[in-house]
Amino acid sequence: MILFECDYTEGACPEIIKRLEETNFLQTPGYGEDEFSESAREKIRRLCGRKDADVHFLVGGTQTNFTVISSILRPYQGVLCAETGHINVHETGAVEATGHKVLALPSKDGKITAKQVRDSHEFHWKDANHEHIVQPGMVYISHPTENGTLYSKSELEELYAVCKELELPLFLDGARLGYGLMSDASTMTLQDVAENTDVFYIGGTKAGALFGEAVVITNPTLKKDFRYMMKQKGGMLAKGRLLGIQFDTLFTDGLYFKVAKHADDMAMRLKQAFIDKGYRLLFDSYTNQQFPIMPDEHLEKLKEKYGYCFWEKTDETHSAVRFCTSWATGENAVEALIADIAEL
Amino acid sequence: MILFECDYTEGACPEIIKRLEETNFLQTPGYGEDEFSESAREKIRRLCGRKDADVHFLVGGTQTNFTVISSILRPYQGVLCAETGHINVHETGAVEATGHKVLALPSKDGKITAKQVRDSHEFHWKDANHEHIVQPGMVYISHPTENGTLYSKSELEELYAVCKELELPLFLDGARLGYGLMSDASTMTLQDVAENTDVFYIGGTKAGALFGEAVVITNPTLKKDFRYMMKQKGGMLAKGRLLGIQFDTLFTDGLYFKVAKHADDMAMRLKQAFIDKGYRLLFDSYTNQQFPIMPDEHLEKLKEKYGYCFWEKTDETHSAVRFCTSWATGENAVEALIADIAEL
Amino acid sequence: MILFECDYTEGACPEIIKRLEETNFLQTPGYGEDEFSESAREKIRRLCGRKDADVHFLVGGTQTNFTVISSILRPYQGVLCAETGHINVHETGAVEATGHKVLALPSKDGKITAKQVRDSHEFHWKDANHEHIVQPGMVYISHPTENGTLYSKSELEELYAVCKELELPLFLDGARLGYGLMSDASTMTLQDVAENTDVFYIGGTKAGALFGEAVVITNPTLKKDFRYMMKQKGGMLAKGRLLGIQFDTLFTDGLYFKVAKHADDMAMRLKQAFIDKGYRLLFDSYTNQQFPIMPDEHLEKLKEKYGYCFWEKTDETHSAVRFCTSWATGENAVEALIADIAEL
Amino acid sequence: MILFECDYTEGACPEIIKRLEETNFLQTPGYGEDEFSESAREKIRRLCGRKDADVHFLVGGTQTNFTVISSILRPYQGVLCAETGHINVHETGAVEATGHKVLALPSKDGKITAKQVRDSHEFHWKDANHEHIVQPGMVYISHPTENGTLYSKSELEELYAVCKELELPLFLDGARLGYGLMSDASTMTLQDVAENTDVFYIGGTKAGALFGEAVVITNPTLKKDFRYMMKQKGGMLAKGRLLGIQFDTLFTDGLYFKVAKHADDMAMRLKQAFIDKGYRLLFDSYTNQQFPIMPDEHLEKLKEKYGYCFWEKTDETHSAVRFCTSWATGENAVEALIADIAEL
Repeated sequence: MILFECDYTEGACPEIIKRLEETNFLQTPGYGEDEFSESAREKIRRLCGRKDADVHFLVGGTQTNFTVISSILRPYQGVLCAETGHINVHETGAVEATGHKVLALPSKDGKITAKQVRDSHEFHWKDANHEHIVQPGMVYISHPTENGTLYSKSELEELYAVCKELELPLFLDGARLGYGLMSDASTMTLQDVAENTDVFYIGGTKAGALFGEAVVITNPTLKKDFRYMMKQKGGMLAKGRLLGIQFDTLFTDGLYFKVAKHADDMAMRLKQAFIDKGYRLLFDSYTNQQFPIMPDEHLEKLKEKYGYCFWEKTDETHSAVRFCTSWATGENAVEALIADIAEL
Repeated sequence: MILFECDYTEGACPEIIKRLEETNFLQTPGYGEDEFSESAREKIRRLCGRKDADVHFLVGGTQTNFTVISSILRPYQGVLCAETGHINVHETGAVEATGHKVLALPSKDGKITAKQVRDSHEFHWKDANHEHIVQPGMVYISHPTENGTLYSKSELEELYAVCKELELPLFLDGARLGYGLMSDASTMTLQDVAENTDVFYIGGTKAGALFGEAVVITNPTLKKDFRYMMKQKGGMLAKGRLLGIQFDTLFTDGLYFKVAKHADDMAMRLKQAFIDKGYRLLFDSYTNQQFPIMPDEHLEKLKEKYGYCFWEKTDETHSAVRFCTSWATGENAVEALIADIAEL
Repeated sequence: MILFECDYTEGACPEIIKRLEETNFLQTPGYGEDEFSESAREKIRRLCGRKDADVHFLVGGTQTNFTVISSILRPYQGVLCAETGHINVHETGAVEATGHKVLALPSKDGKITAKQVRDSHEFHWKDANHEHIVQPGMVYISHPTENGTLYSKSELEELYAVCKELELPLFLDGARLGYGLMSDASTMTLQDVAENTDVFYIGGTKAGALFGEAVVITNPTLKKDFRYMMKQKGGMLAKGRLLGIQFDTLFTDGLYFKVAKHADDMAMRLKQAFIDKGYRLLFDSYTNQQFPIMPDEHLEKLKEKYGYCFWEKTDETHSAVRFCTSWATGENAVEALIADIAEL
Repeated sequence: MILFECDYTEGACPEIIKRLEETNFLQTPGYGEDEFSESAREKIRRLCGRKDADVHFLVGGTQTNFTVISSILRPYQGVLCAETGHINVHETGAVEATGHKVLALPSKDGKITAKQVRDSHEFHWKDANHEHIVQPGMVYISHPTENGTLYSKSELEELYAVCKELELPLFLDGARLGYGLMSDASTMTLQDVAENTDVFYIGGTKAGALFGEAVVITNPTLKKDFRYMMKQKGGMLAKGRLLGIQFDTLFTDGLYFKVAKHADDMAMRLKQAFIDKGYRLLFDSYTNQQFPIMPDEHLEKLKEKYGYCFWEKTDETHSAVRFCTSWATGENAVEALIADIAEL
């Protein structure tokens, strides 16, 4: 059985495991105040071209999302996001549990536009009874999106320009950021992301680490007391060095980017195989998640040897599914799958 | 200037003011433990045909909604409601502020159906990762709806049957319940409402009282410790007698129903005038809220003498607006408006 | 039976009832945007000597407390208050329900000192792990306190100086403010209160109104979007005029101060009677709440004719109880009680 | 520099690192549904003598505490705990952030008694206005306590008997449970803990793992939908196997107990050294935390070579400090410290 159902089926890049072993008996202070965390922070700041950025390490994506969002919003504010956004559909109401409404915007491809943000803002403030309506307080996007799609650099710039104009902090969920940045279709660098958001994170869990998300806060007004928020929300790891070591390793010799590139390459091979077979694609993704629409009978057969993720029924006899690759996906596995698809 | 913009532009039925005056110097215990509150509770139980019901008096609608909802849901549960539902759009995220997601269902007329509830429930539980998604925990409807429309008795029965089957408590927001029950189009009695919900409230604020909502809990599992919830959420009035006196008066000699009937009658006259004038109606309402679609130039002229509520632009030159009547709407005012409309 | 158990056993000053009757059929906009509310706001601003103050009307004390507090604090901050403070002991955890810890300080008389605030602040910030501890974010006091005691002007000035220095907004709960200001022992005016707090409220519920608390925000940084908070927390009354009319009446011809003075005078007569009888006093109160320590057998006898409030057992045979007076307390009632006490 | 300041200065037992390495490329489902997690759950159930128990793995202690507590309490309920309890003083108000008051009870040694719980319950329910006061809804204890002290088996039995009688679920925070169970002073087994609580956890972070806490729910009424809570609160690790592997390793060949015993032994040697030197002890701890009261000049000298944790000033010239041992504490380190103490 070979699993393509998500991008967290294995452990971590062997370099990380090795480093954990090597450092195991070193004594360090807790809570992220160790030298490894500081080194990782420094590397991230440099890669982002933002010496002034605050960098914090949290354990997982849901935790990071609600910690960042609840640190920004006032009690009567909500967060604008695509209706397909992770915080809107796959986090068991974690944001609402901190008291805030998720203000979902229609989206076909997982992205939202500058115009949608502007319209939402205008819609709110022109209402004579706007005090009776949740006030938009920030914008959440993910890059790549839940659908594997990418913002172009100009789309992000346009979005951020509106956000700045309207004083709505822009938060970019980069749980799969590496896969986005290394995609052939990418028009953005990490610096571009850092320049065009107020806060974002570099995902580790889905991109080579055992776990961990590196939050980068560039907007000075969002920096104050963030560690209190982390502690309160359960995101301050006692042995913070575990996060420091992982991110320090990922950002040594470009490991993070290499493994993401590998995953994207594997995904592109799969995509081509789906196209060659004549399958339509639910979303035109250039990253590590691929969404072919396949005959249910084909899926039944594949199920015996491969794990994939059901997405939605598209008609009586077809379903869209998701295949993911990751840092750990072997070429053999991809070739085997491609061969089996060809014979369906 | 005559205001039709909402149903809370005046004080209260004169009978209530008189009663407040008469009782002003009587000494009573606080927090709803006075004889007036008890009398009002007893009358409401009788009218509902439910001697076993718990009846509580709260001050306003938003407060009542979030107090009831947060008393029912577990932390990871949300409340199903029409996307136009008051809790979803006009309460500044009050439900989310108690930690719960509002699970909005599409609705054209403000109502939701038994099928929608069943589908939502199935959609949730059939997801392999349902633990990552907010669990539907109850259903919220309003009657009449935000759009002035009414559930038929059979619609409510069908909805409640599904709710009971799926163990989703059904909560009916009756902020304008009187106007619904006394509508010519109503097929329901107060007893029907009590029999086909787990908890509902009889609105006072918009229907003859200075303020106040009477919550009726019929489902025994929802009764425990509700007064703690009221106190914590700011809904336990120190001089609880004020609520008791008002509801006791409203349910003496059928005052509540009489004034609602009057308001509905006035609204029907207006509706006929809109139709006679050739205006289309945004919603086909048989209750005290009417939603004509009018040329903007007509609205401009009316604005000099009448208050109404802007609802939405329907095209370049037309807008839908809302005219409300209430217990206090004079026949003279209605006749004047009708005459002015005829001359537009 | 004559009730002295609390200060909300009757309705409201007859002037208020009369005014409600007179204005009953006037049409006004809702949510506090009516002319009465504006007039009341203007009068309050003038009396406070603060033309720049924002004034808002809410319904009750618990609601006001948690709405103000949650509008000020960041998620990881708590509110310093006396361990006997209303928010700490008698509001069913309403503040915690908005996500914030109440940081209780020891207090014998219901007051806290500038030194206690400074020490708490220092204690927090000098801890190497202060991020693991709730950060003091504001200070809550009540005046008079729960025990009927009063801050002197210099005590308040000293407290406020420390609060300003430490950037901790000072919030004064004035549920019984009138009784405090009119006490013979008072060394403060309303202007003094306005000058030495960031936000406070003038209580109506316990001091002559049917209900209502007038929040006065003098610190400009606390003003923004307060109405959103009111709406979300259920504190924005649809018929806001009811609050406007009441406070406008209370601040016409000094009614608020007159009725408070009357209540204090009645309380002082009771206090003297307790002293004359040889009872000790649990707190040395100069306001409308009195706390004699009485033999249980005396209390048993009084219980047949008078309502009072049990406070605590002080020894095997004695209890401290509370007697309250109010705007409505008749001289006859007080004389009757005094006579009965003398004969115990 | 040798650190004794806490019990999380190193990585993890080498057996765990080795196992992570061995399993790194195995593919498993996420979110704790892997074979390692299931194996670990089974071992824990067996060791607890409770085949019926639900076992869940979370990442850290604060997260575990607020997730368990908020899964149990109704909105108006609070959690009884010692005033020194971790949730009351060192979690940045995490419990309050979920809406619940921590009801702190006086405690000299970190423990609370059955009598205190009974008294708190009685105090609440006998109050005529108990609806105005936070209702005790559960009891939280830690074992060992923050002070290193232990409940005896009979103390726990007595406490649990009262909890059951009063229907207050008992939650035991076992962040350092291993050190408690293996202490020479312990009169309890893991089975005893499982039999005398409704839910507890076995701490990994402070006792040999990289991170992780194993929650054991024995009370059937507390089991439902706990995974929803975990997901919402950020405690459902994507690569859940990391927790499974760690706990499976810790409970293979008694590793968890062995390393705890080692830490306790090291701590006892330190304790004896403190006593021999004539230092008094702030708490009489028989577990891995030791609290000597030392002359400040001694502490100054030790600071050059050893890390310890400041606890509190005890007089002008003395301070209480904390020295911790762990699975990783070497005998050499302990001997060196003892020798240096002897020479102070």
